Order: sequence, then structure tokens, then C-alpha cells
Amino acid sequence: MSQAESSKDNQRADSNAHPTPPAPGTLRVVPLGGVGEFGMNMMVLEYGDDIVVIDCGLQFPDQEMLGIDLVVPDTDYLESRLPNVRAILLTHGHEDHIGGLPYIIPRLKAPVYGTALTLGLVRAKLREFDLEDYVPLRTVKPRDRVKLGVFDVEFISVTHSIPDAVCLAVHTPEGIVLHTGDYRIDPSPVAGDGFDTFSLSRCGEEGVILLMADSTNVEREGSTESEFEVRDELEHIFAEAPRQVIMAMFSTAIYRMQVAIDAAVKVGRKVFIVGYSIERNEEIARELGCLHYGDGVVFDDRAIESYPPEKRVILTSGTQGETLSALSRMSLENHKRVRIEADDTIVLSSRIIPGNERAVYRMINHFYRLGARIFYERNSHVHVSGHAYRDEMRAMLAMTKPAYLTPVHGELYQLIAHKQLAMENGMSEERVQVIEDGQSLEISGGVMRRGPRVHSGPLLVDGKTVGEIGEVVLRDRRNLSQDGMITVILVIDRSNGDILAGPDIISRGFVYMDENAELIQRCKEVVLDAYNDFDAPSREEKDVVQTGVRKALRKLLRDETSLFPVILPVVMEV
Amino acid sequence: MSQAESSKDNQRADSNAHPTPPAPGTLRVVPLGGVGEFGMNMMVLEYGDDIVVIDCGLQFPDQEMLGIDLVVPDTDYLESRLPNVRAILLTHGHEDHIGGLPYIIPRLKAPVYGTALTLGLVRAKLREFDLEDYVPLRTVKPRDRVKLGVFDVEFISVTHSIPDAVCLAVHTPEGIVLHTGDYRIDPSPVAGDGFDTFSLSRCGEEGVILLMADSTNVEREGSTESEFEVRDELEHIFAEAPRQVIMAMFSTAIYRMQVAIDAAVKVGRKVFIVGYSIERNEEIARELGCLHYGDGVVFDDRAIESYPPEKRVILTSGTQGETLSALSRMSLENHKRVRIEADDTIVLSSRIIPGNERAVYRMINHFYRLGARIFYERNSHVHVSGHAYRDEMRAMLAMTKPAYLTPVHGELYQLIAHKQLAMENGMSEERVQVIEDGQSLEISGGVMRRGPRVHSGPLLVDGKTVGEIGEVVLRDRRNLSQDGMITVILVIDRSNGDILAGPDIISRGFVYMDENAELIQRCKEVVLDAYNDFDAPSREEKDVVQTGVRKALRKLLRDETSLFPVILPVVMEV
Repeated sequence: MSQAESSKDNQRADSNAHPTPPAPGTLRVVPLGGVGEFGMNMMVLEYGDDIVVIDCGLQFPDQEMLGIDLVVPDTDYLESRLPNVRAILLTHGHEDHIGGLPYIIPRLKAPVYGTALTLGLVRAKLREFDLEDYVPLRTVKPRDRVKLGVFDVEFISVTHSIPDAVCLAVHTPEGIVLHTGDYRIDPSPVAGDGFDTFSLSRCGEEGVILLMADSTNVEREGSTESEFEVRDELEHIFAEAPRQVIMAMFSTAIYRMQVAIDAAVKVGRKVFIVGYSIERNEEIARELGCLHYGDGVVFDDRAIESYPPEKRVILTSGTQGETLSALSRMSLENHKRVRIEADDTIVLSSRIIPGNERAVYRMINHFYRLGARIFYERNSHVHVSGHAYRDEMRAMLAMTKPAYLTPVHGELYQLIAHKQLAMENGMSEERVQVIEDGQSLEISGGVMRRGPRVHSGPLLVDGKTVGEIGEVVLRDRRNLSQDGMITVILVIDRSNGDILAGPDIISRGFVYMDENAELIQRCKEVVLDAYNDFDAPSREEKDVVQTGVRKALRKLLRDETSLFPVILPVVMEV
Repeated sequence: MSQAESSKDNQRADSNAHPTPPAPGTLRVVPLGGVGEFGMNMMVLEYGDDIVVIDCGLQFPDQEMLGIDLVVPDTDYLESRLPNVRAILLTHGHEDHIGGLPYIIPRLKAPVYGTALTLGLVRAKLREFDLEDYVPLRTVKPRDRVKLGVFDVEFISVTHSIPDAVCLAVHTPEGIVLHTGDYRIDPSPVAGDGFDTFSLSRCGEEGVILLMADSTNVEREGSTESEFEVRDELEHIFAEAPRQVIMAMFSTAIYRMQVAIDAAVKVGRKVFIVGYSIERNEEIARELGCLHYGDGVVFDDRAIESYPPEKRVILTSGTQGETLSALSRMSLENHKRVRIEADDTIVLSSRIIPGNERAVYRMINHFYRLGARIFYERNSHVHVSGHAYRDEMRAMLAMTKPAYLTPVHGELYQLIAHKQLAMENGMSEERVQVIEDGQSLEISGGVMRRGPRVHSGPLLVDGKTVGEIGEVVLRDRRNLSQDGMITVILVIDRSNGDILAGPDIISRGFVYMDENAELIQRCKEVVLDAYNDFDAPSREEKDVVQTGVRKALRKLLRDETSLFPVILPVVMEV
């Protein structure tokens, strides 16, 4: 079953949309997103009348979700107990942790807590949706503690690819529930508060009942490398480049931006920021003191022409080959400010997300056709991951000494690999609970068990619609995409069933009509024959006639072409 | 530009479909597939009135090629000089080298040369298309030489993941053109003639004017490992497995099949072959002596129930998560003979082809949900590649000492990386020619230059149609897939333009009609308004009316939903 198939409609049937609240003295943990899938992270903690929500992310649609813009978690479970929702707590400012907010806060109306940069990014996002003042945005600093009903939430600084990332220690009557957010353990961070080993190990001493830990890189042995390795490589590439450098990165990777700027300064190049989201993020990060550089170093794209190519480093996003990104347009010689010429240097300072390989390599091929030199993660050292490798995951377990572990942020195979790692590290099997979205856990008296399965699933965003596109519509789109469609129209005389006009045949996405006049003619004959085979009483049943016409036409097309377009017969009565 | 966009229609415009023959004394080399793309390999050598074609593969469609079954090379260039085509020469029996034959030999009608297993697989394939006796199939052995017009073709044994693979040394008046086919250098092959270092280095001594060499694994340093490493790992997995083992592999990987059978025998398990293509290939390989095992070892799927789960190794295909494969159906508890239970062991003995990650991991996740244990290339040693790594590519260059190199089998970024490798190895830049499909090369007097660009491109196979589906149809399918379609039908009185019936609105893949009655009603109003705005003379211009209706409806839907379905207005006159 594809993810699309497990969408709203289906899941409603086999899960409990509105289970009773947890029993008194019981902490319930409900994953509504990001557990057993990648992206749209959302975790719920519930105790008595108090609920806090951790993160509110979006996901980019699967390729089966034709035409869908993006996907956010279905918050049905929370909507059934709105007055109890005390807060949405954010771990950091990546789209898979904050991107769902514009769609979800109108439903939840709860205050949002996060660090300065995280809320800076949230504010910019909400402004686009005219939701800036819709709910309070409350800024916290690492080591702050916030009382929210029965919960006492501690924000603990961790290192990640974006500044101001925190993990959450939620002090509950059942002990500390620790949610790592996204992290890696970087002993030499570019800037910021660093990885707060003290607070995390102090939680370990106090008693962590449940650790929910990032599983993204569980297939990678060892530890992540320092961002400074990337800086050295960039310095080398910038210094050697014969002409302009175009460096693409994730638009939120502020540390990467810092090392790129530092490297450019060192080799005497200027930096030009190109692209809406990366410009906006640069501005937010700089204003909040997360990004530092001197005057006359960084410019926007209008200044490019003022400096010769060998003095330029152009920073942009679009590393995944996204069709409309500035980088993709540059590769197609279709960007208004930046033209790629032979011996230009392209740096893709990011990983290639699985599933995007074809788009990324297609873009790389285009750059090669233009004569450019290209550096990317498979031929140089231009990227390090922001997510813990296996040794760092082991260190997190050792430091926090949880009674229970539930792996999060990953597909099931990653969660299970994380479980295996924890067991190799000495945790007994019953102490590691692998669950997927909608499967709750309940903790009571120091013991964790599975709780009720609650409704969860993707809410599809398409244009202005949120959650209106479901499985039926997607199935139609898939059918239309395969062999196109044929509409057959007959106009008949209501009084006697005589054909007054038609059959007319209109098709899209089937075969060239012009080159297949004979086939179209045979379609018409088959439709007429099918219609004429019905006697007068049957002809009054439009459904019956339409079904008969569809069947006859399907048979003809199958025999002649082995194609199965969507057939829409229409009988109009006059 | 996507690959889909560079299809037949487009390319016809900017390339020369029927260039003049090469000048006397000139050898022309024309890549019609597989150079600058992955799959559907086809290379043409032409001298005077003689043409030989190397390989005739297929390619699986890009995800933009909606509904397309498969893709084969366009052979326009060859069809313009059919009488000159002496032969199609095959390097080995993989789909990307032989899969195009059923679609291409009716066009070329040339005899086909290949080794026994290669032609065994070709014969089975042609039988499905009733083409078995359409052209002569001529079996050759390694070290055979065949005169074909001016060409003298030598078949040289190489090691690959399928037995009976050869590289081709085509002796021409301009020297030897060496085409590696797919190869790796395996010093301890499971069976077969092995890698014929002698013949290749003898060609090097005689004088290779042009080497066309496989670029698939140019991003991988070092050398491929021995198939025996896989055998040891399989033996270990089979021995430890508590219940049945299901091992998936590429259905042509006969050596892998051999080591799996050997490992099963060693640990006392029986082997059951499940799936049409793998059963057929096993039978062909066994009959040709490419696969060896004793009696009572290998069975078909009807025998599964006769042995307890802990005695079973089930061999099947479907490693890429293909929707209809036996393996995929097993993961969905939807296979008629094999049911997966907890503690069953799944082995994916293959690589995950980039672009297929999501489908493969989705299948892995399903197996985990069923409680299975899973071994795949990222967590165990269950696969080695059949394509040369960088050190083997260096060895090929050293052994054959070509005057010129043209990298083949790969996208442009791989061809360029291969060029860089050759230059690191001491070849000068002008001795390495990176080209893409359609760009010919010409060799004369020991010098190679670029020749004319000829028409090339993908020929799309959809159902029974070959080459009938082009860019217009694909674009329609993409549009239909995004936001679906709406048909609006109006029946009007021919004499006075009065509306006799409608507007009726039919949609597929748009929004739920039932839940959007109000929107549908507004659509009808907008259509009526648009129609009524036309005066009587304009109403007689059906095109004008239809355009007006489409425009009005598009505006409404954009404002209300931000969706852009395909809008098909139909005016029927009575």
C-alpha cells in the first residue's frame, strides 16, 4: 500500500478518531507525523487535561500524490480536545518541523514556543499567510523552562545544520520525556550554544523515562565530520575556480552560509545571495545575530554585474533539482541575472535526498553541457550531514540513560535499525518500542505500554484546498495520467431516443487524434452500435446507456491499442 | 529540459535525420542510445556500404513519461540505409542491451549475433512477440571472428553479472574499435570463460583506434569484490535463518542464482523459483549449461508446501519494488503461494537503482511490519556489482592502450567523470571524446573528429503503440495528472443559439463533486454568463465560444481553489 493509499479516507475506517482521554495518572504519547515516515514531524504528549505538541512539519508529496503541493499531519485527534492544547513546541526551524504551522494553527489556535531563529522563520512564514498575529509566538532561550499545565518544559541546546536548535526535556509526573529533535554532536560548532552535554546528562541522572531520538542517519557508521572540513574544501574550490562560483545549499543551512561567506572573504571574493527563500533566511539570521560578516561582503543579485566573474560567489538554493529554483533555471540558461559559461564552477553543498537523484543528475548534466565544473557530495567534501551518525546515536543513549527508547524521524526500516543499535548497546528488547504514526504509547507507574491507535494521516494541500483531496481524486489523477481520457458525447431526443447530434469524441493524453482518424471513426461506430443495441425503455436509463457505451469502447480500445484511457460517456437529452 | 521533453518531435527539428554517408575511407561511429543516458544501448559503426549495430536495449521510462511502458532507441538513421545493415551484434543478455529487439528487428530485419545464453534469452523474448523466426539468430563463441562486409568482428569473453558476456573488437580499415559492453574484471569468476586478458591486450598491441568503455560505476573507487563474498554471506544468512528465506535478485543474474543454490545445498535447504521471468531464465541457463546443480535441489513454486519453512530458500525477482512483482505482492500479503510470517528472512541481493529508493524502502517497511528480518546492500554483504569500478576502468585503459576513448553507458556526468579518470591516467584531453546520443564521430587516417549530428531519441512504447505517443500526448497526461479535468457540455439550437440542454459538468481528478455542489453550481453560472455574453454571430463560431467558456471557468477556479484542471468545453449543436 502506497502512502497515498493510506490517506485520510482509508485510515478513518480502521482507527479510532476520538479515543477516550488517558486514564488518570497516565501519560499518553501520540505520534501524529514523522514516525514511520520521513517529514511532517508532530508528537503529542497528553496527561489529564494537558496537551503539548512537539513540532508541526510538512512533507513533500510522494510521486503517487499527483498534483499535490504538500502534505501536513492530520490533527483530528487534537481537534477533538482543543481546549486542552497548551502549546506547540518547536525544536528548530526546518520545514519538516515548522512547515505545517500555516495550515495547522488555524485549527489548533495554541501559542507557539521556540528559540529566536526558529520563531523568526515561523514569523516570516505566517506573514505570507496573513497569520502573523493569529497565535502568540513566545521566544525561549536554551536552558529556559516553561510551565504548561502539568508539564515543565526545558529547552536544551543541541547542534544541527541550523542554529538555535533545541531538544526538549518535558518534565512530567512520570519522569522526563526527552525528544531530541534533529541533532548531531558537533564538538566544534561554527557558532551558537553548542551541544549541551551537561543538561542532557543531568536529565539522565534525574531519570529519563522515555527518549524519542532522531533516526535519520542510522545506516551510517561513525560520526559526522566538522563543518570546518567543508569550510576548508570551499576555500580551496573558491581559490582555484577560474571564473564565478555558484554554490547551492539548503536555504536554512545558516552555518553553511557562514562558512561559505568566511571562505569567500579569505580568497577575496564577494558573495551574492540569489533566490527568495535564501535571501529571506539570510536576513532573518543576520538580524538575530546568527550570521556574522563585515561590510561590503554580501550583496543581493542586483550587484552581480558590478564585480568580475572571478570575484563572485553566488549563493542560492535548489540543490534537489527543483524545477522552478534559481539553480535549475541557471542550468537551463533561463535565469534572468546569472548566466553560466564555460569554466564556471558549480558547488552543490548538500546531500542528494533519495528520490531526487534523477532530477539532480539531470541538472548536473545540463551544467556539464554548458562547460561548467561541478563539485558535489560524490566527488568532493562539500557537505556534512546535520544528523547524528551511529556513534553519536550511541552517545545520546549513553548520556541520557533512558528507561525506554522510541525511535522517531524515519521510515520503519530506520526505526528498526535504531532499535537494533540500542539493543547492541545493551537495552533489552522490551525497553525499545518501535511504533508508527497513530500508535500511541502510555506510561504509568514507570511502565510503558502501547495505548490506543488514534486517527492519523496525511492531510493533502492542493492550491487553496487543505484535506479536500482524498484517495478517490488521486486515483482518478493516476488513471488520467496513464493513458489519458476520452469523452464521448451523444445528444438524444428525450421523446423518442433518436440521436440528434454526435457521437462526438474528445480526447486528451490518449493518442494523436489527427494521426488516428480511422481509430476515432471506429470508436464512433462502436458507440452508435452500442446505443442502437438498447431498446427504447433501456435508453431512458442514462446510466445503463453510459455503462454500455463505456464497455463497448473499452473493448475496442483494448483490442486495437492495448491502452486503457478513462472513458467518460455523456448522454445529453433535449 | 526533461528527457521526455527531448522526445521524438523536438529532436527532429534540430538534428539531421538523414545525413549523407561517411566520406570514402572514413569510419563513422553513431551512438543511438545509452550515451548520455542510462539504458537502451545502441551503437552504430558505418564504413562505406557496411553497417553493424552493437546492442539493442530498452529503457524504463522516466517518471515524467506518464503511462509509457518502456522506451527503445529511435532507429530512423538506420532505416534510411536499411540495405547496408549487416548485423546486430549483442554483448550480453541484459534488458538494456537486448530488450529493444522485439520493437526494432521488424524495422531493421538484420541477422542477430550473440553468444549462446544471450541468444537463448533473445529467443524467449522474440517468441512472446511471435518474432522467433523473423531474422536469423547466429550463435557465436568467445574468440570467434565473423566477417560482416568490411568489418571483422571478434567476440572476447569478459566477466559480468550474467554469463556469456563479451566485448566486441571490431577490426576496421581504420584499426580496432573496441566496445567493452558491460564488464568487470573478476579474477575468480563463478563459471564461464572469464575475463580474456590475453585477447584484450593482444588488441592493444595490434592497435585500438577507439575504445568505447562502460562508465556505470565511475563514481566508485577501487575494484569490485568477488561473487564468492556474496556466497559466504548467503551461506551464513541461510544457516542462521529461523524460518523460510525469500531471496530476491535480478532475474538475469545467473551467477548469483548459482551461488544462492550452492549456499542452499550447503546448509540443507531446497530452492524454489517463483516468478515468470526468473523461472524462464533459470531454465534457459540450465539447458545451456550455464547453471549447475544436482537432482532434488531446485523446484518450482508448487513444491513449496512439501517442505517446512526452515528448509526453504525461495528465489524470486522484484528487487526494485516493482508493483506487480511476486516480491512486492508478498510484502502486501497478496501472493498466492508465499505468505510471509514473523521471523521469515528476506534478502534483497541487488543494488537499489537510484530513483527506486522510495519503492524499495516502502516494500522493506511492509516486510518489517510483517515481522520479517531483512538483509539488503546497506546492512549486509549480499550484493556485488557487475560493473567495473575505477581501478578496473584504469586496468582496461592500460590493457587496450586506445588511441581514443569515448565513454559509453552512462549519463553525461558519468561520461565526464570517466574522461577525467582517463586524463588522470595520462590520456591527453583531445584523445577523449565525450559525446551524447546522436553526435557521431568520424575516424580517418588515424584521426578522430566529430561527425554530423544525426536524429536520435527515445521511441515510446505504450500498449501496442510504438512511437505514436509523442510530446503533445505526454504533456496532456502531465496536465491531467496535476489537477484533473473538467468537461463542460452545452447543447444549443443551431437555428438561434438557444441553450437546449446543459451546461453539464463532469470532472475527474479535480475535487469531490459531491462535497463541492456550491462550486459546481457557480461553474455552471459562470459558463452560462460567458455564453450569454456572446452575441448571435459569435455563437456560431464554436471555437470562439469554447475559448470564452474555458477562460471564464479557469478564472473562477483559480480564484476559488488555486487549482488548474484541464478544461474541455464542448458545444453540441442540434
